[in-house]
Amino acid sequence: MLKTIDPLLSPELLFALAAMGHGDRIVLVDANFPGTSVAADTVTGNILRCDADIVSALKAVLTLLPLDTFEPNPAVGMQPVDDPASMPPVVAEMAAVIAAEGFEYSAIGRYDFYDAARESFAVVQTAERRFYGNIILTKGVIPPA
Amino acid sequence: MLKTIDPLLSPELLFALAAMGHGDRIVLVDANFPGTSVAADTVTGNILRCDADIVSALKAVLTLLPLDTFEPNPAVGMQPVDDPASMPPVVAEMAAVIAAEGFEYSAIGRYDFYDAARESFAVVQTAERRFYGNIILTKGVIPPA
Repeated sequence: MLKTIDPLLSPELLFALAAMGHGDRIVLVDANFPGTSVAADTVTGNILRCDADIVSALKAVLTLLPLDTFEPNPAVGMQPVDDPASMPPVVAEMAAVIAAEGFEYSAIGRYDFYDAARESFAVVQTAERRFYGNIILTKGVIPPA
Repeated sequence: MLKTIDPLLSPELLFALAAMGHGDRIVLVDANFPGTSVAADTVTGNILRCDADIVSALKAVLTLLPLDTFEPNPAVGMQPVDDPASMPPVVAEMAAVIAAEGFEYSAIGRYDFYDAARESFAVVQTAERRFYGNIILTKGVIPPA
């Protein structure tokens, strides 16, 4: 426990968030995602865990992580395989969190998502049971005071 | 860089602060302190660094670390060898920071300080050039909201 820090953010996750720089990406994924195998290709190399639903994990991460204003899409989810344009409730909840940050949620296909996740800084596996509870976040910058 | 986090706190130092629990101790030391050898006996095993003077480092750490209200002395420095009761300017500055947190600075002898530092969670070496810029902090608790 630390002052001002959401306890959902483990020491390992805090390390990753702080070690990331501008343009680095972190991926929050649901409980079915192949997190450990995908994370093996990332910068950290090891899966990180957040024992919460994806929306709580996303909110906790965004208390510290600035999203990238240089990017048109700094928050990218996975399109449902059967109906790419649909938005399941869990996705709508994530999109609302992203909108509250002033950004627009977008989505890419399942295998494009896997490829992007493999090129990321780190993967965080949550306890989310709902399908498509996955999101890639691009880190932005914090200007001088 | 992260929202709300002092950039003096490196990813490694953030990890240590978050991984510590109630009663664990972190030691901030000056540039002459035998940091690497003492840190070899600590929980982390490796020296951490903070590229700042000791007062800036102390203030940054205390933005996140709660001091221990269960302890009579959660902030302990090193007594000057030639004059144990004296308080050099750097120590007076640290004591003022501790007082602003609502606690009282105290001090122990040089070798007792080394022994206590070896039993700590982690040692953080700063760029402080002034002698006796060393302090042991005991982590407290944060109650439920």
